Amino acid sequence: MADKEKQAQTAEQGSSNPVPAKVRPQIHAPTYEGDYVLPEQLLIECGRTLSGVTLHYAVYGKLNAARDNAVLVCHALSGSALVGEWWPEVFGPGAVLSLEHDFVICINLIGSCYGSTGPLSVNPETGEPYGADFPLISIRDNVRAQSRLLDSLGIKKLRLVMGGSLGGMQAIEWTILNPERVEKALIVGVAPLGAMGLALNHLQREAIRHDPDWQNGSYLPQKPPRRGLSLARQIAMLSYKSGPLFEERFGRNPNRNGEDPWSSELSLDGFGTGLIGGRFDIAGYLDEQGRRFVERFDANSYLAILRTMDTWDPLRGGSSSEEIFGRIKAHLTFVGISSDWLFPPDDVRHFAETVRSAGVSVDYRQMVSDHGHDAFLAEQTDLVRLLQ
Amino acid sequence: MADKEKQAQTAEQGSSNPVPAKVRPQIHAPTYEGDYVLPEQLLIECGRTLSGVTLHYAVYGKLNAARDNAVLVCHALSGSALVGEWWPEVFGPGAVLSLEHDFVICINLIGSCYGSTGPLSVNPETGEPYGADFPLISIRDNVRAQSRLLDSLGIKKLRLVMGGSLGGMQAIEWTILNPERVEKALIVGVAPLGAMGLALNHLQREAIRHDPDWQNGSYLPQKPPRRGLSLARQIAMLSYKSGPLFEERFGRNPNRNGEDPWSSELSLDGFGTGLIGGRFDIAGYLDEQGRRFVERFDANSYLAILRTMDTWDPLRGGSSSEEIFGRIKAHLTFVGISSDWLFPPDDVRHFAETVRSAGVSVDYRQMVSDHGHDAFLAEQTDLVRLLQ
Repeated sequence: MADKEKQAQTAEQGSSNPVPAKVRPQIHAPTYEGDYVLPEQLLIECGRTLSGVTLHYAVYGKLNAARDNAVLVCHALSGSALVGEWWPEVFGPGAVLSLEHDFVICINLIGSCYGSTGPLSVNPETGEPYGADFPLISIRDNVRAQSRLLDSLGIKKLRLVMGGSLGGMQAIEWTILNPERVEKALIVGVAPLGAMGLALNHLQREAIRHDPDWQNGSYLPQKPPRRGLSLARQIAMLSYKSGPLFEERFGRNPNRNGEDPWSSELSLDGFGTGLIGGRFDIAGYLDEQGRRFVERFDANSYLAILRTMDTWDPLRGGSSSEEIFGRIKAHLTFVGISSDWLFPPDDVRHFAETVRSAGVSVDYRQMVSDHGHDAFLAEQTDLVRLLQ
Repeated sequence: MADKEKQAQTAEQGSSNPVPAKVRPQIHAPTYEGDYVLPEQLLIECGRTLSGVTLHYAVYGKLNAARDNAVLVCHALSGSALVGEWWPEVFGPGAVLSLEHDFVICINLIGSCYGSTGPLSVNPETGEPYGADFPLISIRDNVRAQSRLLDSLGIKKLRLVMGGSLGGMQAIEWTILNPERVEKALIVGVAPLGAMGLALNHLQREAIRHDPDWQNGSYLPQKPPRRGLSLARQIAMLSYKSGPLFEERFGRNPNRNGEDPWSSELSLDGFGTGLIGGRFDIAGYLDEQGRRFVERFDANSYLAILRTMDTWDPLRGGSSSEEIFGRIKAHLTFVGISSDWLFPPDDVRHFAETVRSAGVSVDYRQMVSDHGHDAFLAEQTDLVRLLQ
């Protein structure tokens, strides 16, 4: 699993369609990595009940005697509990977290394929893997399960809860659902998903479901919907990056492997089932990103977590923002990313202002980057600097 | 064909996922609509030779005795020769074109499925339809064929050549290849396609090629790759519109047909081959746009014209911009659209400046609109006002 999870890092790292060499930051090994099985059934928001829910988690550093040095890091869509691998620079000297002083916990999302209960898990009620029958798990469901795990670790209070993207959604819900337990929250590149984000997720879902190998979700483990998942990842990559970044890196160059976009010759694609013509460099890059993703992620998990993302709406059910956000006692820091078009910085700023209007202590910072939504992973040094 | 081409209008018009009612402008019938068959073989840039190339075209108004009132309108990716249907407001009183004074010609792109030679046409050399063997046709190939058609109509000079998007690419090439024949050019929402545009086209191509019904391009007419083409269109729709427009129209509303995005129930999709869950409104809109497109457009034509778009690069082959653009004698008006992220206004402005630096008479105007790239079709009144 460690190898697999290593790939859960940002697309930047380890691309074989190389980008200008960058010193790879030192990654950190967890103090402990394991599973927590919820002792009771978990009643989830959609009305179903799950038995034997497993949370896979990793911890870094040590809980101090006062038990007041705990930090929860929440991961994004395809991330894992191994935050020391995918967000190493937030642990740098003088950075956001300290391996010396903090006790850092990161918990894999329910629905994921990286250790927590998900579509690949066996449903104890049927004895079969959930597959496409895996229920809709909300951000709140995750936060409620996570707080049971923290109970079991004897953690009453979090000095900080933090996350980017889907991780930020969890961080906000932590401050709403457990106001007494959180001192500070750091929320990067996220706001309730708008129509463009819902559109992008819809097309990714369609890409997977259009793949005949998807088999309505009952695909064979040895024959997953590779082409569909690859295309879904590629659609997502457009929204994680930015036009200026693509322009700078790839421009209108032919694919660096020597293909000729003006050629009439076609060749077999990487799946051996279709034909491709000469590609531009950006196309070669995207195909490679798709291919790598298929090796490391499960299609039904991807579908499950997309729904977790789609359905997050802290005000759902008609509650006022004063009522919901007014519960928050933590100080919230929001970070918008200048070139993010999945969660545009204006949306993040507007969301921060809405929360502030409910009487919450809030500050907003903007990260200037061409890296798009992915900047919180791709430009960690800049993120850390912004937060100092 | 008239019915089919009617649908070639902007996605705004006639959506069954309705948008706020808008008075539909009067459309105009052509004076003549027909085919021109090139008397000689057409040597195309990729090195192949095509025999019996047909250009389907429509004309509006009358050529005057001095033959100096001709205007060429070039259409975009999935448009048709019937400009009076898809760009009716540019013919309005006091607008860009006059049915009383101008002789307007619009010629269907080679590769299209709306009358000109394309993948559905029979290759005279084999007696079989071209299908996926249809060659790469460049923008220049189109312009060269179009100029033969104008010769045959006795038109020596164009008062104006105009187009948006792919139509603008043709308009620019007209001024480069035939500098003596063009007085003015109007180019809307276009610049050489950047890396993000190439990426979007790549994913659309993949969506079609992933569809098992595509059959490496040799699909049966009664069994085209519907799901793939539908997904391709939906990916394209994201790039034709803008986040703010989607937000205003669809927000996070559930699909207006009553589906519940929080429901666990799934139902058969429109193709009868897959399952869909409760959709958000934006997803219902996109699916409907995909469904409509599949009814009116051919997948191999779509692939062919995407390549025409991808490969347009007026400076290809290492020529300097002074050398290429310095040939232009026409006055060029460029229009960028504020919310266009397929061809961002800064790219259009920068391109206009590059052409001006070669000594060309150029002006640049910016259309302020939330409609994204599609604004040149969706907000024709505003476009006309900007040009007055």
